[in-house]
Amino acid sequence: MAVVTFTTDFGTRDSYVGAMKGVVLSLAPDAVLVDITHDVPARGVASGAFVLAQAAASFPPGTIHLAVVDPGVGGTRADVVVEAGGHMFVGPDNGLLSLAAPRPRSAWRIESPAFRREPVSPTFHGRDVFAPTAGRLAAGQAPRDAGPPLAEIVSLPDVRQDRLVDGAEALVIHIDTFGNLITSVRGATAPEGIWTVDIHGRQYVATGGRTFADANPGGLVLYAGSGGQLELAIRDGSAAALTGAGRGSRLCLRRGS
Amino acid sequence: MAVVTFTTDFGTRDSYVGAMKGVVLSLAPDAVLVDITHDVPARGVASGAFVLAQAAASFPPGTIHLAVVDPGVGGTRADVVVEAGGHMFVGPDNGLLSLAAPRPRSAWRIESPAFRREPVSPTFHGRDVFAPTAGRLAAGQAPRDAGPPLAEIVSLPDVRQDRLVDGAEALVIHIDTFGNLITSVRGATAPEGIWTVDIHGRQYVATGGRTFADANPGGLVLYAGSGGQLELAIRDGSAAALTGAGRGSRLCLRRGS
Amino acid sequence: MAVVTFTTDFGTRDSYVGAMKGVVLSLAPDAVLVDITHDVPARGVASGAFVLAQAAASFPPGTIHLAVVDPGVGGTRADVVVEAGGHMFVGPDNGLLSLAAPRPRSAWRIESPAFRREPVSPTFHGRDVFAPTAGRLAAGQAPRDAGPPLAEIVSLPDVRQDRLVDGAEALVIHIDTFGNLITSVRGATAPEGIWTVDIHGRQYVATGGRTFADANPGGLVLYAGSGGQLELAIRDGSAAALTGAGRGSRLCLRRGS
Repeated sequence: MAVVTFTTDFGTRDSYVGAMKGVVLSLAPDAVLVDITHDVPARGVASGAFVLAQAAASFPPGTIHLAVVDPGVGGTRADVVVEAGGHMFVGPDNGLLSLAAPRPRSAWRIESPAFRREPVSPTFHGRDVFAPTAGRLAAGQAPRDAGPPLAEIVSLPDVRQDRLVDGAEALVIHIDTFGNLITSVRGATAPEGIWTVDIHGRQYVATGGRTFADANPGGLVLYAGSGGQLELAIRDGSAAALTGAGRGSRLCLRRGS
Repeated sequence: MAVVTFTTDFGTRDSYVGAMKGVVLSLAPDAVLVDITHDVPARGVASGAFVLAQAAASFPPGTIHLAVVDPGVGGTRADVVVEAGGHMFVGPDNGLLSLAAPRPRSAWRIESPAFRREPVSPTFHGRDVFAPTAGRLAAGQAPRDAGPPLAEIVSLPDVRQDRLVDGAEALVIHIDTFGNLITSVRGATAPEGIWTVDIHGRQYVATGGRTFADANPGGLVLYAGSGGQLELAIRDGSAAALTGAGRGSRLCLRRGS
Repeated sequence: MAVVTFTTDFGTRDSYVGAMKGVVLSLAPDAVLVDITHDVPARGVASGAFVLAQAAASFPPGTIHLAVVDPGVGGTRADVVVEAGGHMFVGPDNGLLSLAAPRPRSAWRIESPAFRREPVSPTFHGRDVFAPTAGRLAAGQAPRDAGPPLAEIVSLPDVRQDRLVDGAEALVIHIDTFGNLITSVRGATAPEGIWTVDIHGRQYVATGGRTFADANPGGLVLYAGSGGQLELAIRDGSAAALTGAGRGSRLCLRRGS
């Protein structure tokens, strides 16, 4: 039984997600379907790439990840299937798959009629190209059967930076549901001591810690997040709401208060 | 393995959807459960009917579609199961199923004790009537076992209109997550040239095209949508936000600028 | 095939839910995964406990319920697995599981390395402790293999009150998607007659009934809800919006107008 995951900016109130799943199940009745998210911001290719990369890492080998954040649908960008790290990725060649599919990777254009559902709607390759491809892969076909090989896929810049020593200029690369700020600084171990954080010209004091409970209620905590990046959170609150930071905001971290 | 889909206005923060799925799995442990949407506007029977019809078309034969948008629950409307086009539909007889279940169709009232879960809550037939029915069907029982046949189900008017030639008065029948306006005009092929669109007394110029990329950034595009209707969108933006149009808004399309 | 349900405050736009499901499927490829909700208010342990208890009651014996609303993650609270009423419950020992897991119940701490995924992130036990545990249970391991037994789990107060006779002081224990007020008063049968409801110092008249249709359009109806509690709703509207009531609001019910 193949696992097929879904990552889109389609939202959950329309028929689009259901239609894709119907197509996959028509070709692969045994597939196990798992939503990663359909709440990527509209046309937010970089946001979708980040969330897909974070989630994909926890799936078993052989998983097929279908992703659609696709403002250029029906235009000149290619439809692709990528094989990397024991997983398969299906979607538009606009960078969306690049963070989740580690190098070395192999890629093919999706051009075989068996991997498409004619007539292909110029605005919904999710249903007519990517879902049939995921269905064929889930039913056991090889990605190389999808079409001609592609030398390289479009890659987003990887903004992740070195670990923190005494300070860093960093970017906010994601805001999660809790308002936690995920930063571009790699961090696998908890920072210690007191830190000053500059955001939008204002200064905040944060405690280095392992988890939220290491700060006082309402206090900022700087910690090594579950995805391998340094994060900034407020115990029992939203760091995004407090600081006004958003995706792409710059922050300056410096040891001491 | 039977596929059971779910379309409701229950939202996703309460226990209602989970409870229905638990009941289905209790009767049909092998059923494959797929959400179409739980974000139909509260009591929006016509909206739910549209989304269900759009999504159901992509599912394999034998799929069971459970739908609940049911402001009259516990009142005089019937509980029904409908067989049409190789699919089965389970829900309230208030029009919700009528767009998805094409004629000819057969219908039965759900009255057999085996298809209900006693005591039936007067406010939650989703859990106590429709989920047991979907579970029984998924486990292989025939829809005619549910109860006495029903000559016809309640049908919503089908507002879809003829194709566009040089102009049309149209309705907005759905606004999707991206703010695209799905209209009542049928359109399987892309309109060409320049069009004037009148909405709420204001005029806009739209380019006929195949897909969003056929308009300039920020420009309106008129195209044949993936569901077979003409749609109006803005490249990289929300046509609904620009025009203030909502479900039911009237628009006038006319060739030329 | 084991059923694994998910109840969290993680929302649906991040990678967190997908990551947990990937871990479960890595250990139990045949597991059937069902979302109850990911929209518990952030850190709303009591809200999550209520929704989980309401939904869990409809699932088949042997179901594994994974729940994470966990503001104290990484701190001193225990990770637990609970067996009660033929179901298993996995989550933080902070009260979240207590309403769904009826007494008598057995509980174990999750300490065995086989039930954890090292290194355990101090901020994401959902992925690194609870998902591996749910996966092991779904694959057939016994809960007692997770670690040492725990004499009792943390329990939330059960605020449910006796049935209504001629009046009651009550609490609003949940507001659902429709704006219906679920109260702390038990009610398995429909109240009859006319009732006065005091909320936030204002008085409303409600009709006792079986279902929404028993009130006039726009009128308040007091009825025995599908979860066994008395509820207050408006036909074709939101009782929460009308009255301003929220979770925890007090209301006074009294027979007569």
